[in-house]
Amino acid sequence: MNVAVPLIGLDWGTSSLRAYLYDVDGNVVATRQHAWGIRHLPEGSFSAALRAITTGWPPCTILAAGMVGSRQGWHEVPYVKVPADVTTIAKGMVRNDACARHDMWIAPGLLQDSPANVMRGEETQIIGALSQQPEHRANVRFVLPGTHSKWATVSDGRIAAFDTIMTGEIYALLMKHSILGASVSVEEPQPVPNEAFLRGLHSAKESAAEGAFSRLFSSRALMLSNQLAVDDVPEFLSGLLIGEEFRIALVRDGGDNSVPLCLIGDLSLCHRYAIAATYFGYAPPTIIGDAAAQGLWQLAATAGLLAQATTYDFLGLDA
Amino acid sequence: MNVAVPLIGLDWGTSSLRAYLYDVDGNVVATRQHAWGIRHLPEGSFSAALRAITTGWPPCTILAAGMVGSRQGWHEVPYVKVPADVTTIAKGMVRNDACARHDMWIAPGLLQDSPANVMRGEETQIIGALSQQPEHRANVRFVLPGTHSKWATVSDGRIAAFDTIMTGEIYALLMKHSILGASVSVEEPQPVPNEAFLRGLHSAKESAAEGAFSRLFSSRALMLSNQLAVDDVPEFLSGLLIGEEFRIALVRDGGDNSVPLCLIGDLSLCHRYAIAATYFGYAPPTIIGDAAAQGLWQLAATAGLLAQATTYDFLGLDA
Repeated sequence: MNVAVPLIGLDWGTSSLRAYLYDVDGNVVATRQHAWGIRHLPEGSFSAALRAITTGWPPCTILAAGMVGSRQGWHEVPYVKVPADVTTIAKGMVRNDACARHDMWIAPGLLQDSPANVMRGEETQIIGALSQQPEHRANVRFVLPGTHSKWATVSDGRIAAFDTIMTGEIYALLMKHSILGASVSVEEPQPVPNEAFLRGLHSAKESAAEGAFSRLFSSRALMLSNQLAVDDVPEFLSGLLIGEEFRIALVRDGGDNSVPLCLIGDLSLCHRYAIAATYFGYAPPTIIGDAAAQGLWQLAATAGLLAQATTYDFLGLDA
Repeated sequence: MNVAVPLIGLDWGTSSLRAYLYDVDGNVVATRQHAWGIRHLPEGSFSAALRAITTGWPPCTILAAGMVGSRQGWHEVPYVKVPADVTTIAKGMVRNDACARHDMWIAPGLLQDSPANVMRGEETQIIGALSQQPEHRANVRFVLPGTHSKWATVSDGRIAAFDTIMTGEIYALLMKHSILGASVSVEEPQPVPNEAFLRGLHSAKESAAEGAFSRLFSSRALMLSNQLAVDDVPEFLSGLLIGEEFRIALVRDGGDNSVPLCLIGDLSLCHRYAIAATYFGYAPPTIIGDAAAQGLWQLAATAGLLAQATTYDFLGLDA
């Protein structure tokens, strides 16, 4: 079966590389994924990773987003300042001249001057989510949970401002390296959050203006005084740290929890955040598993990168 | 020269062991220190460590305080609940029957039910500091900076309540293992805090009810956007995290910074905290380098452990 393919999209982060092949309508006809994040490249080479992940695909235009455009990436792309929308982000794309085989472009990340903040890759997820959920263009808060959780405010179709909370990284550090994880035999939280998760949420909430940083040690004190089971410590800390994100958000918004939330990311993590959102009085959030493919397509379309399509003898092997 | 020595005091923590030999007036006539914390024992043996550090000293009564009385210590001593003073702490001492050579006692740590909190060793420092600074018995906040900073409220001569903030441990984790320390070539903060330290303090202060956890990532964003030199990141984080302790304290006290502060601990660290205290509007704190020896003596005297003194032919070798 022949398919006209105008674009390959790359979601190229620190720890993984995903590639999408699109038909002319923007449908993803093939997806590939490898652990070739920019710090884990095969042969230490960006072009080797790209060659390998696109093996057998036609040499069409490529658009990449994520840490591949950072200082440690293949080709540094200057940040675009917020407020930014699909047009301003598309204008900030840079051609990657180091890529000989393809007409390859890299999307910029976003920069916020004050409070100082940066993102790379999440802006593309948000653009993709907005294209899927146009009703959210007027006013929504996107939450992208993870190593560095992003909270982005969209109003009038533009990413107006954003915050970064190092929840996932701090959680992992505490469990792996700190006294809090010392006696704990389970390292990961349960697939489904339990009652200790809710206790953590509660602790973050009742910490009020003190904040959850003042409550971290309590997970050990509760354990030592037999008020918390040792193996519930990960759940408690998960609730405490995720709860802290919502506590901070509510402080910023003066206690207003009426803004609609949209979660983008790993579904089991989004599930935890949805529970936390409800606990903090928000309406149940919309959950989107992944929107990078749609975002790359929207950016490429806006930048006029879809003019040429190559015919690909698609055998369905990639499906 | 013969000296009558009634007591050996041990400050036995996680990473170090210090021993004090006293005369009958409570003067320390000899001090020894080794890196034999309870996790770094010679031959893995508490008695080997004790034997080695007291070599040549007479077999008099011993009082130990610190993690040696924890579940991972030599002999677990139940916590005493706050409010607690020198008398209630002395009553909570337990004889260490596992020590065959000496009449050895271990002081209890303190437990606070709500918010759940524990300390082991700091209570002895506080008792010692109160004996040095009797004017502080009425009303003072003791701050013991370190891996797990303790803030303890003393009123009417009793330790009424306390908090633990994991400042030192979080700082070390961030610098060693997180993205924030990634490009930084200096790991330790400067001996004297610089302007980046003040920027960190400022960031903690202006975070107001959001808290410094919401500002951690900004150290990277400022660095990436050339607003903070890479090698100033440790200073900035030091200021941000120490500032967070003061921000939390002020929230708890409803903004009242009139309580006198007394710092106990490593002098260069206390110097940082003194700068932070002033920045947050407190009067310059009293600084006490170490008060464990005095605390051990006070507890031993209160418990009636000083009845017998052994004559020691003190050659001044230990001075």
